[in-house]
Amino acid sequence: MKTTPPTTPTPDDAALWHDGRLYLADQRILPERAEFLSYDRAAEVATAIRDMVVRGAPAIGVAAAYGVALAGREAYSNAGADWKQAIEADLERLAASRPTAVNLFWAIRRMRDLIARLEASDPSQALLDEALAIHEEDRAANRRIGDLGAELITEPTEIITHCNAGALATGGYGTALGVVRSAHAAGKIQRVYADETRPWMQGARLTAWELMQDGIPVTLQADCAAASLMATGRIGWVIVGSDRIAANGDVANKIGTYGLAVMAKYHGIKVMVAAPTSTVDMAIASGAEIPIEERDPDELLGCGGRRIAPAGCAARNPVFDVTPAALVDAIVTERGVVLNPTTEKMRALMD
Amino acid sequence: MKTTPPTTPTPDDAALWHDGRLYLADQRILPERAEFLSYDRAAEVATAIRDMVVRGAPAIGVAAAYGVALAGREAYSNAGADWKQAIEADLERLAASRPTAVNLFWAIRRMRDLIARLEASDPSQALLDEALAIHEEDRAANRRIGDLGAELITEPTEIITHCNAGALATGGYGTALGVVRSAHAAGKIQRVYADETRPWMQGARLTAWELMQDGIPVTLQADCAAASLMATGRIGWVIVGSDRIAANGDVANKIGTYGLAVMAKYHGIKVMVAAPTSTVDMAIASGAEIPIEERDPDELLGCGGRRIAPAGCAARNPVFDVTPAALVDAIVTERGVVLNPTTEKMRALMD
Repeated sequence: MKTTPPTTPTPDDAALWHDGRLYLADQRILPERAEFLSYDRAAEVATAIRDMVVRGAPAIGVAAAYGVALAGREAYSNAGADWKQAIEADLERLAASRPTAVNLFWAIRRMRDLIARLEASDPSQALLDEALAIHEEDRAANRRIGDLGAELITEPTEIITHCNAGALATGGYGTALGVVRSAHAAGKIQRVYADETRPWMQGARLTAWELMQDGIPVTLQADCAAASLMATGRIGWVIVGSDRIAANGDVANKIGTYGLAVMAKYHGIKVMVAAPTSTVDMAIASGAEIPIEERDPDELLGCGGRRIAPAGCAARNPVFDVTPAALVDAIVTERGVVLNPTTEKMRALMD
Repeated sequence: MKTTPPTTPTPDDAALWHDGRLYLADQRILPERAEFLSYDRAAEVATAIRDMVVRGAPAIGVAAAYGVALAGREAYSNAGADWKQAIEADLERLAASRPTAVNLFWAIRRMRDLIARLEASDPSQALLDEALAIHEEDRAANRRIGDLGAELITEPTEIITHCNAGALATGGYGTALGVVRSAHAAGKIQRVYADETRPWMQGARLTAWELMQDGIPVTLQADCAAASLMATGRIGWVIVGSDRIAANGDVANKIGTYGLAVMAKYHGIKVMVAAPTSTVDMAIASGAEIPIEERDPDELLGCGGRRIAPAGCAARNPVFDVTPAALVDAIVTERGVVLNPTTEKMRALMD
């Protein structure tokens, strides 16, 4: 864990704890400006998650864990021995910040489990230690995912990724981009094509920035240019992250992933989903049960701060979609790889 | 043909001739501002085509035909009886403005055929009459395409369209949106989902504007949201235009069309390509021979006039792709409909 005072964020600084405050790299303004925002109250962390200061399922989980630590400190300061009652509103606020990424609920659940074990005395250090552990475990999981995913890539190739499943989306190193980093180090990644990923442009802004900083060759493309690239025969894999994986291996991820997987299947290109097991939700049988967040249509009606569509235009803005397990060749977690996922195989992984 | 002085363009005013000048609705700034630019020299028309003041394959053809009329007037004014030599540079300039839409070359070829038949005397009126005829014929073709395409839609449905193949992309009424207009009038279109169509956002800006003006229900979506919409089962057709159709029925159209067709096939949704026969290029056997324009990567590195990607980021910006005939259910032209296109069927249509 970094302990130096935060100045300019690097890609590994989606979230960091320093001197009693949570620092989040403001991912809405990267790479134009690299700035931290800092938080000492859980309610503000919940707003930051909702407003996408921090995004990416594992990073949301890490930020929420720190948010619970902040909530515990405030609850004890306000209510003393009654802090377990006082913290409840903040836990609910954090859980309501975004609906799709299950890592958020997973992290809150883990913090709740600790809360249940704590006494009436000041919980601040124990909660912070747990948040720091969640953060560090996520970072370690991504290293392992990177290595396991890289092993699946048998020969040097170009790949497509969508959105940003990088260091910025996680506790560090990245899931999909963790695989890319490990595979590039092993000489297996010739080039990454980054879909720009409307409407928030995480590919153009964040993935391009991360990979350029690491010296990994990256080429940006419009989301709708993926099929013509696949038709060239140069793409070996589509590698993406996930916001929630159902018990049967259906994968919720950034809107556009499902279409990419359909196109990959048509072209005989393999699809790898890289995610820690905190992204797996064995409580739901299939992707049909995953709540898909719809965000403000205004996110689509303009770009770069400028209005594009006519005033009053209707817009559909689901920000995730579900890729059926049948289109997924490999789910790569820190516990191991599941090829051609099924409920049985997922259960074996998670048990 | 309109003869009133142009003030504010309507969707049917992609190109119009008035008082000795060519007026083009500036499609780069619609719908934020609705303004004409006017031209009295062919060289300026070539620049306008290159810079996408006018875009859409049939509209480019119409604009180029007027450009040849302007070129003839200028050539006769400068060179008198030697005008046929003097016009040559402008014809080449117009032909070099954009590479993919074959309507451009078709229109110039047709104007050249007339030039070959003309005498040494002032060609201005004859060339203008031919340009006006090309314009009017395109408008009439689109009405016919609209009717034929609407007949293929057997029950009320929602559809997806990509880019803008509307009145603005043609001499008037539109190809894909001509079908939408005719089918909507017949009660067969419940809603149009318009892909926003990066990088130029023709869907968000132009298709949304056209359909809202006609009172046809339209919902904007990110390009990469199409697959999740298809998965709902509500979409009956994907309806698009084309920039060039090869002899075997392969279709070049705006980047993203190919991916949409792959996704449509996966979901059992039909794909209709609406285009006048001026878009059919029987001189090339398949789509592999269609030159695909790559435009400035800068078009992808920003949006709305604001930089998005990191400085120095590489970008791939092909602005068309090729959909193989096997993914096309119907090509609808003013001469008739070709179902499941093949070279034999295309030849029968064009002979």
